[in-house]
Amino acid sequence: MGTATTDIVREDARGNARPRVVIIGGGFGGIEAAKTLRTVAVDVTVIDRHNHHCFQPLLYQVATAALSPADVAWPIRHMLARQRNTTVLMGEVRSIDTQLRVVQTAELTVPYDYLVLATGATHSYLGHDEWEAVAPGLKGIDDATRTRRRILIAFERAELADDEIERQRLLTFVIVGGGPTGVEMAGAIAEVARQTLPPDFRRIDPRTARILLIEAGPRLLPALSEPLSAYAQRTLTRMGVEVLTSSAVTECHAQGVEVRGNLIAAGTIIWAAGVVASPAASWIGAARDKAGRAVVNPDLSVPGLPDVFIVGDAAAVNWRTHQLVPGLASAAKQMGRYVGEVIATRIRGSSHSRPFRYRHQGDLATIGRRAAVVNLKHLHLTGALGWLFWSVVHIYFLIGARSRFAVAFSWAWQYVTFQRGARLITGTEPSQHR
Amino acid sequence: MGTATTDIVREDARGNARPRVVIIGGGFGGIEAAKTLRTVAVDVTVIDRHNHHCFQPLLYQVATAALSPADVAWPIRHMLARQRNTTVLMGEVRSIDTQLRVVQTAELTVPYDYLVLATGATHSYLGHDEWEAVAPGLKGIDDATRTRRRILIAFERAELADDEIERQRLLTFVIVGGGPTGVEMAGAIAEVARQTLPPDFRRIDPRTARILLIEAGPRLLPALSEPLSAYAQRTLTRMGVEVLTSSAVTECHAQGVEVRGNLIAAGTIIWAAGVVASPAASWIGAARDKAGRAVVNPDLSVPGLPDVFIVGDAAAVNWRTHQLVPGLASAAKQMGRYVGEVIATRIRGSSHSRPFRYRHQGDLATIGRRAAVVNLKHLHLTGALGWLFWSVVHIYFLIGARSRFAVAFSWAWQYVTFQRGARLITGTEPSQHR
Repeated sequence: MGTATTDIVREDARGNARPRVVIIGGGFGGIEAAKTLRTVAVDVTVIDRHNHHCFQPLLYQVATAALSPADVAWPIRHMLARQRNTTVLMGEVRSIDTQLRVVQTAELTVPYDYLVLATGATHSYLGHDEWEAVAPGLKGIDDATRTRRRILIAFERAELADDEIERQRLLTFVIVGGGPTGVEMAGAIAEVARQTLPPDFRRIDPRTARILLIEAGPRLLPALSEPLSAYAQRTLTRMGVEVLTSSAVTECHAQGVEVRGNLIAAGTIIWAAGVVASPAASWIGAARDKAGRAVVNPDLSVPGLPDVFIVGDAAAVNWRTHQLVPGLASAAKQMGRYVGEVIATRIRGSSHSRPFRYRHQGDLATIGRRAAVVNLKHLHLTGALGWLFWSVVHIYFLIGARSRFAVAFSWAWQYVTFQRGARLITGTEPSQHR
Repeated sequence: MGTATTDIVREDARGNARPRVVIIGGGFGGIEAAKTLRTVAVDVTVIDRHNHHCFQPLLYQVATAALSPADVAWPIRHMLARQRNTTVLMGEVRSIDTQLRVVQTAELTVPYDYLVLATGATHSYLGHDEWEAVAPGLKGIDDATRTRRRILIAFERAELADDEIERQRLLTFVIVGGGPTGVEMAGAIAEVARQTLPPDFRRIDPRTARILLIEAGPRLLPALSEPLSAYAQRTLTRMGVEVLTSSAVTECHAQGVEVRGNLIAAGTIIWAAGVVASPAASWIGAARDKAGRAVVNPDLSVPGLPDVFIVGDAAAVNWRTHQLVPGLASAAKQMGRYVGEVIATRIRGSSHSRPFRYRHQGDLATIGRRAAVVNLKHLHLTGALGWLFWSVVHIYFLIGARSRFAVAFSWAWQYVTFQRGARLITGTEPSQHR
């Protein structure tokens, strides 16, 4: 497959020179921008490395064997199939030339009139990228199946182990980072160990597994109010999770983690501690903050590049005093919709747009069976009611009736039987981790 | 993790010296043997490389994005969790010492009084093992997701291709082998190309995909009667599959296959042409036939090793004149049950067993939407009725109510919408295949 400079969008438009909007990234922001341009006289091209859009808020359920990958991911081209002005291309962006106005992938050169960067964020290891191999994060489907494999293999190896020290190490799970993903992972692993697995093992008792949630800051779920943080910590502790706050991890390696100078021997380490924006800003030479996010204008365009926009986790957008818009699905969607509208307005010949204004819809995190925290403007819930609310909201935001039904069924089944439907060890690890 | 010679089964039995039955392989034969020993006073250990039992008859549906891996695979230890005399170990067998009566895995030495080898079969490339990299077969979950990835990536790359010859090559799918798996794969890929994908692509028309089913023998489905073979070929042809019979593949490489001296340029090659028994026979030094199957006594024990049994695809068992028991799930189950009964009989002090007798329950293969062939003793069906019968039988044989419900729902959804729920490209390929 050679590299070609075909103007693929013009080809599709059959000589019709409509403005070309290229969107890089098929996550929440990119998809929403594309959908907003549905009825606008433009040719939209969405480029993503993967063929699927992934519903990240439920990825931890794939990692803990509750859901299958196909329950929380959908082919991007199918999501946009009915939108006739839109082409989806699977490809990895190599570079962007903002002078020639082209995006370069391995296979194609794609010209644009408007460019939307919606490339999201990835794990940040705070300068210790070598930790990634031992402490994987949770951003995509392959991350989730990798984490699932590691968790399930730890129990399998413990069942085989003859040495008591080694067995205890294998049955120790460390989750680094006390945000929503860390809290959700810790709660879910506790349920796997205490409820799902015990009848299936003979030589070990999975209930003896040690699950540690380690947070560098003073409390869990720092985005939420203090009473909700305290509730989350209490609930996790009751579920048998050891919560360590004000505890920075200073080292991760194959044998465990170091916290405040002490080694905690662990067979599985899961990274939920921080994110860094994807390199979108560097592609276009934009200024970045320390988390790698691009500094953008109030209309989310890039200073000096009025036709290039950045949305979602890759953009640093002011919200409240000293606070940026958080890295949430709803924030990315709002930005995507906003940029779609700005482009539509410009195409209609108007150049004036109101600045982007983020509307915080609230924070949610689930902890376990009948336990979640919900922090909306006029609604604060915990316990079973919070959990029910969390479940309904997440089902609602899934794509397509099929997934909604499948996930609701999986949850109902799990609620009744305590069993998880996707307890499969698939794929392989590089041999040093076996 | 060191190697230990602990007698794990005796440990579990708390000093109770019950006979130890070790079963290697958690497929249809191994699971059935274990279940048959449920109420017998033995300690059973099931060893498998994977943590899951895989329902191979529906693997082609995972490979063609209709079902998720978790729909057709279940943790072996959960399947046997309620059977208190049974321990499940995940491990790879390194060797067997029939003098010391121990099985050696990477981690453990497991002693046995009775040994059941139920290790199944793998793809046979007829002396061309180098073909495996370009023409994967379909024996396990990882094979299925790999094949799914290749099929879906072929369409994605065709959408990106600028060269018409290359595009046609990428849209050519070759299935080698006209048995049930080959017929099912060819029909399913035709449906993906003709029904599922067309609305989602802009630059290619997936309906133009070329699907070839190549069989070395004179007809498809040689195990079935000639009218059923002819029906399968007619139906596939109507679905747009090119069926080549009496056509041996003489070469497979990255650009395509060679058949009767002609190169057929193809982007995806799927191997469904032959199987070879797993190396179980060589572990114990047993005589093998040319397909690698161990020659066994009429009670499925190994000549000279009366306490070692071989069941399923790894055993060569006579059936009719000049015919062996076929490599079907029901045959493996019958053998597993038989050997479980032989061991139970011996433990009760009786040494006499009737020889194993295979009862052929029939042959089934699905071709596509409302088309299947059913060949039972008193029932021959084709068309919609065959398809319905095939569907009900396969739902029935799935493990657990959860999978039955999930698969039935997936099929109903797909029947109505033509959409496949698991169209995900996951994992990565070695770079030379990208």
